[in-house]
Amino acid sequence: MAADALEELIESLKLLPGVGRKTAQRMAFALLEGERLPAQRLSRALAAAAERIRRCSRCRNYCEDQLCAICRNPQRSAEILCVVESPADLHALEQATGYGGRYFVLHGRLSPLDGVGPAELGLTLLADLLADHPVSEVIVATNPTVEGEATAHFITEIATAGGAQVTRLAHGIPVGGELEYVDRQTLAHAFGGRLKV
Amino acid sequence: MAADALEELIESLKLLPGVGRKTAQRMAFALLEGERLPAQRLSRALAAAAERIRRCSRCRNYCEDQLCAICRNPQRSAEILCVVESPADLHALEQATGYGGRYFVLHGRLSPLDGVGPAELGLTLLADLLADHPVSEVIVATNPTVEGEATAHFITEIATAGGAQVTRLAHGIPVGGELEYVDRQTLAHAFGGRLKV
Repeated sequence: MAADALEELIESLKLLPGVGRKTAQRMAFALLEGERLPAQRLSRALAAAAERIRRCSRCRNYCEDQLCAICRNPQRSAEILCVVESPADLHALEQATGYGGRYFVLHGRLSPLDGVGPAELGLTLLADLLADHPVSEVIVATNPTVEGEATAHFITEIATAGGAQVTRLAHGIPVGGELEYVDRQTLAHAFGGRLKV
Repeated sequence: MAADALEELIESLKLLPGVGRKTAQRMAFALLEGERLPAQRLSRALAAAAERIRRCSRCRNYCEDQLCAICRNPQRSAEILCVVESPADLHALEQATGYGGRYFVLHGRLSPLDGVGPAELGLTLLADLLADHPVSEVIVATNPTVEGEATAHFITEIATAGGAQVTRLAHGIPVGGELEYVDRQTLAHAFGGRLKV
């Protein structure tokens, strides 16, 4: 730790994503102005999170027990499994959709150059899970990037081997978006995948 | 603390200035991904800062002892005093200028409607300081806002009573700025205060 508590605070705040020197300084001064309770609360929350949060042994989502709240919930269907790249994606789907099935969190995407292969993404665990508890549908919700597509392809093979039907999230024009400003690939996808009214 | 360590971490990160729900979520997930050392380091830095950092008894700058490093430094002239609104302003001046005198930090500006009067800004301490240790120059470096100007006026009276010469930071066109885009007031100031080459 640096000799100076203020300097160490600024350096530590720079560890947050998207926070540079200037922002870290502003945050540090704001935390020190007035009462110290916010800084203490954040300090405790960070320590508790670092110590207590781990991965669900079934779906690799963040949780504090052996199984996460979703895997423990008897109301959630064990018939459908949605595969996402990150806990943040899971969070986004939970907030936006009424999805009632379970998840599987990859914590990344296939990227051989960065040393991320099937093992790092827990795909053996996924294959075992699908073998032990066959599901009727696997929703592949990886991101529509090159690496996400490669990952999706891999998962599709595992899921098909397990006898599940595989679905992907629909591509198309964002709700509220204007045709004029939608990129070409998305527009081509939306046009090709047009639906009957 | 919330039952859920992740939710509590997100809520606590929202205490940082300029951080909303979305950014807090992104920060929380980034801190949990991979090893936990950054979260632990930030936790310790926050706890240490909240516990150890207090105000210098002479200039009200942040420090960990009775006197701050600037007030303790025998190399810094005790003949000049620069009055700033916040420790952040002090920091900015220290980084940009070669100023070799001391500071006085107000921790705010006069704002009667918000309950900030001379007492909250430590102006009694400032008057006592100038009485006990007369200086030749007081640089008033408050911000050029309405409240900053009112505060500057007040400080000028105190400093003049103490027999010091009072100076203000120069207003003008920002270095690298273009005349065309400078606001009217600044341009009028710069024009009125033009200097001989």
